[in-house]
Amino acid sequence: MKVAGAHYRTIWPLASGAVRVIDQSRLPFELVTVDLATLEDAAHAIKAMLVRGAPLIGATAAYGLALALREDASDRRIEEAARVLQATRPTAVNLAWAVTRVRRAIAPLDPRQRFEAALREAGDICEADVEQCRSIGLHGLEVIRGLATPSTRRINILTHCNAGWLACVDWGTALAPIYMAHDAGLPVHVWVDETRPRNQGAALTAFELGAHGVPHTVIVDNLGGLLMQRGEVDMVIVGSDRTTAGGDVCNKVGTYLKALAARDNTVPFYAALPVSTIDWNLELGRDVEIEERPAAEVAEVVGRTAAGTVGSVRVVPEGSAVLNLAFDLTPARLVTGIITERGVCAASREGLASLYPERRRAS
Amino acid sequence: MKVAGAHYRTIWPLASGAVRVIDQSRLPFELVTVDLATLEDAAHAIKAMLVRGAPLIGATAAYGLALALREDASDRRIEEAARVLQATRPTAVNLAWAVTRVRRAIAPLDPRQRFEAALREAGDICEADVEQCRSIGLHGLEVIRGLATPSTRRINILTHCNAGWLACVDWGTALAPIYMAHDAGLPVHVWVDETRPRNQGAALTAFELGAHGVPHTVIVDNLGGLLMQRGEVDMVIVGSDRTTAGGDVCNKVGTYLKALAARDNTVPFYAALPVSTIDWNLELGRDVEIEERPAAEVAEVVGRTAAGTVGSVRVVPEGSAVLNLAFDLTPARLVTGIITERGVCAASREGLASLYPERRRAS
Repeated sequence: MKVAGAHYRTIWPLASGAVRVIDQSRLPFELVTVDLATLEDAAHAIKAMLVRGAPLIGATAAYGLALALREDASDRRIEEAARVLQATRPTAVNLAWAVTRVRRAIAPLDPRQRFEAALREAGDICEADVEQCRSIGLHGLEVIRGLATPSTRRINILTHCNAGWLACVDWGTALAPIYMAHDAGLPVHVWVDETRPRNQGAALTAFELGAHGVPHTVIVDNLGGLLMQRGEVDMVIVGSDRTTAGGDVCNKVGTYLKALAARDNTVPFYAALPVSTIDWNLELGRDVEIEERPAAEVAEVVGRTAAGTVGSVRVVPEGSAVLNLAFDLTPARLVTGIITERGVCAASREGLASLYPERRRAS
Repeated sequence: MKVAGAHYRTIWPLASGAVRVIDQSRLPFELVTVDLATLEDAAHAIKAMLVRGAPLIGATAAYGLALALREDASDRRIEEAARVLQATRPTAVNLAWAVTRVRRAIAPLDPRQRFEAALREAGDICEADVEQCRSIGLHGLEVIRGLATPSTRRINILTHCNAGWLACVDWGTALAPIYMAHDAGLPVHVWVDETRPRNQGAALTAFELGAHGVPHTVIVDNLGGLLMQRGEVDMVIVGSDRTTAGGDVCNKVGTYLKALAARDNTVPFYAALPVSTIDWNLELGRDVEIEERPAAEVAEVVGRTAAGTVGSVRVVPEGSAVLNLAFDLTPARLVTGIITERGVCAASREGLASLYPERRRAS
């Protein structure tokens, strides 16, 4: 999507063989790029969340595996690189998927061909992600269109965290339908949950919506319930970090609370996701391992200081314990529908199987 | 309650005739007291939120009126002082109530007796608040005791915002039962919602629990739902800024989301409150006017900077709109019980009438 008139993706290869990414830890106040030249660079970018969002993590891991093979493309090196990448973000199913895809593509090849082939495969993963997001956007656009009547003055859509183009390669998942609705002239307005602890909503979703010109309002994570009680939310749309075969959605912590409020106020609640986030081997969300992240993300809030630099303030007393779990589970019963690159379906085994019949045969 | 072993209240008179308060705008990182010697001192302490919380605002206003009469206790001076105090936080119901109570007590007296009488009345207001909170604590203690079995290793209680002794004179409302349970040797552990946007949970609740030695863990407002799904919350207890005659609870924004999660996971949800927060003229929460506060409270987060001073960082892009509504509504159907100074009752007109039969006659 566009920033100040220029088209950006979140990740792109350089002629040097390195890969360039936007350092999302500096947004929304600084737009800075970082070059990843080694496996360690890529692993650090994922772990330290310079890049985040399931599809972008997958794309970065794919490039990371390629970068690992620049000097040594032996089977052992592939094994080691996969292990390093896998350890960066244990909950992210896209990461394992992308690494496996690259491994499968290069395993039969002569080691001398593997680096180039891995780079090509990573590039293909990126292109496929862009296409997938575009398809999600087109299907989601029809859902939004269904909310509008000729007299609708504003379509209020609430979103949590960032499932926009910054989480993907381009377009985004949850935000793709919103961009398409806005571009189609529908009067969309987005309630942006700030999304503590890392404030991806305030920092990233607000940034990218603003950069593209989509009307939006930032709110604390606590406010969505009241807005729904007041009839000021027409639809909730979120991404998903992992979706079970039964339709449970594992997404950024706090999503479940919004889904509960949506049900209590008869507001439709959608999750928009590519097939790669579906874990066909898992029926129930409660079996997903939830990543525990550093206490400092809660105890210290990052933002722009009075001096204009990126800094942090501590908001928790020194002696207090902190628990920082990154995701929660929204059971399928609270999900109105799942929007994928193939269409919209019910959040259930049957619903997902209707879009992916080849999976039904397999299971 | 205790700070570093010493017993504190939030406000207490000095032999000099002045009044001492804790400057809560410096918490949790600095425990500083401020002496209020004049009407202007008291008005500033309320307006600049050195003191906050409805009962404490009332107590400070009562003392402020007394301080105004030290040199001139004429009817005109009383009138003027009441006007100055009333203007500090125009919406605070307790403020008007406390000022009126002191005025009524001193109006019939000779001006030479008024300063001492006003001081006594302010002291009585404080003592009555402490007694009320102690009673809430004793009734709530029995609720907590009911959660424990001989094999219980930890009783996990989630609270939102600050309804502790820092909001009152001592004990608090929602936290009073927790202090009593802790002092009685029950293994309570508190999940403290940080409570965006002003972080009263992280800043004040965590501070006062830590200072008294109550085990607790600070979490983002988004996490409580997952903890309930995992069975790690045995009870939710919150305060209330306004309770309707029908049992709806208007409390700090985000309370409703926790009540929804509590119901979805069969976790008991209690509101602890003194009779003064019950609005007998209002049946439904949806009729409560919700205060809209400055956008800067959302856009900028206050905390301790790297330099050790209290400062802020901006977390929302400059171009993004912000909406900051301070309270939400938890309908009575989600409230397991209401704990008041008279006992525990159902969140309904019948429940409240059973504790306050004199009100049933009146309505």
